[in-house]
Amino acid sequence: MSTQKTNPTAGIILIGNELLSGQTVDLNLNYIAKKLFTHGVDLCETSVIPDLENEIIRVVRDYSKRFTHVFTTGGIGPTHDDITAETISKAFGRKLVRNEQAYQILVEKYGEENLTDSRGRMTMMPEGVELILNDSTGAPGFRVENVFVMAGVPTIMHAMFENALTVIPKGEKRQKVIVSCKVYESRLAPGLHSIQDSYPQIEIGSYPHWIEGKSWGVRVAITGRDLIAFDETKKKVLDLCQSFDEKSHCLEE
Amino acid sequence: MSTQKTNPTAGIILIGNELLSGQTVDLNLNYIAKKLFTHGVDLCETSVIPDLENEIIRVVRDYSKRFTHVFTTGGIGPTHDDITAETISKAFGRKLVRNEQAYQILVEKYGEENLTDSRGRMTMMPEGVELILNDSTGAPGFRVENVFVMAGVPTIMHAMFENALTVIPKGEKRQKVIVSCKVYESRLAPGLHSIQDSYPQIEIGSYPHWIEGKSWGVRVAITGRDLIAFDETKKKVLDLCQSFDEKSHCLEE
Repeated sequence: MSTQKTNPTAGIILIGNELLSGQTVDLNLNYIAKKLFTHGVDLCETSVIPDLENEIIRVVRDYSKRFTHVFTTGGIGPTHDDITAETISKAFGRKLVRNEQAYQILVEKYGEENLTDSRGRMTMMPEGVELILNDSTGAPGFRVENVFVMAGVPTIMHAMFENALTVIPKGEKRQKVIVSCKVYESRLAPGLHSIQDSYPQIEIGSYPHWIEGKSWGVRVAITGRDLIAFDETKKKVLDLCQSFDEKSHCLEE
Repeated sequence: MSTQKTNPTAGIILIGNELLSGQTVDLNLNYIAKKLFTHGVDLCETSVIPDLENEIIRVVRDYSKRFTHVFTTGGIGPTHDDITAETISKAFGRKLVRNEQAYQILVEKYGEENLTDSRGRMTMMPEGVELILNDSTGAPGFRVENVFVMAGVPTIMHAMFENALTVIPKGEKRQKVIVSCKVYESRLAPGLHSIQDSYPQIEIGSYPHWIEGKSWGVRVAITGRDLIAFDETKKKVLDLCQSFDEKSHCLEE
């Protein structure tokens, strides 16, 4: 019997018409992606979908089956277009009920006399969830099975995600380094190809940056879990880059 | 027989490990989304996926069936990790061949003596594609069936997308306005709900912004194609917002 551990995986579902109409620039994917990388969880895929019941159900069910953890952002506020909680209840065949713990949090925050129907709407959740607390505005997100349901507003999402991370076991962190050099990407290509062939367990990504008349060059990102292979790959890539541009250097480790 | 036209739809596929590891902040989704909105094309979904053959094939085939137009970004450069062109050949069961027109463009740009194997790799495309020219670095993207395959580097992608748009018929543009007001979202909720019920053909989105101690409030986005209903909805939402905050105003139209 194999004792090999499989590293935890994740998918993100960004829910909101405003991202698809171009009205809002997403700030959540990169935030979550960086945190998951540091946490050793492999982010495998992200979808941006509209506030439509059928779409949310389809993608949430699909991601929930395919990944260890799923994170959704958006659609859990007090207004008519916030349909995520209700829709996720349907996706998992659970009743939508008032979460008493969430209700008490809002009562303490706003006073019972200010707990309007609309605010109360934010305490309606699938039955039997774990709350994801939010130290910013109070109204919590929730976890149902392996799906973490969070707000879309970045500051609120950040507060929730920090709390969500505390219940997610760490995976094995990938090492990472970026080698920056000023050379045409096509000149690096044969050397990089050859290094990649020698170290298939290490991921070598080549990313040109190109702003005409301003800045250009290549960043080579090296990531992996095998420490010896990682160090060897890093040395070979740096040597390769310096053979074209002696100022090539490591940007971050 | 109905003569009703269905408005063109679109999906975007952002291809690249760097977006999922958090190394790179995506700048392409919002750019394309805004342009499509102005062009009258309805962006329905976006996926961010890794540079993995099976994933690219799965999502490209799925999107190609579901949407009028599909746009991919990333993975068409000269290095070993640029597998998009080859993979899309497989997705559509087409041979990967040297595109003579693309080859001539690179010969003119760089001179035949500088057309290394790696640069030449950028002219390998599925058989029978239309090129998407790139006035920035020369190397073109391509269109195969309804899938536009573009670079990931934003400046290059922008150059390609401008050219892609010229061959995409315009759809019926949605009207849009944003009403900005300083009020708790929960207070607007009942009024917005009621306006939405009266105008189901208009989309009313409510987006709180919340940076503790700095800025807060709500932006209500109103979008739709029925001009009369749009104007009535806009007036009602503005009246509602001004009943809570008399400084409420339209941000853009």
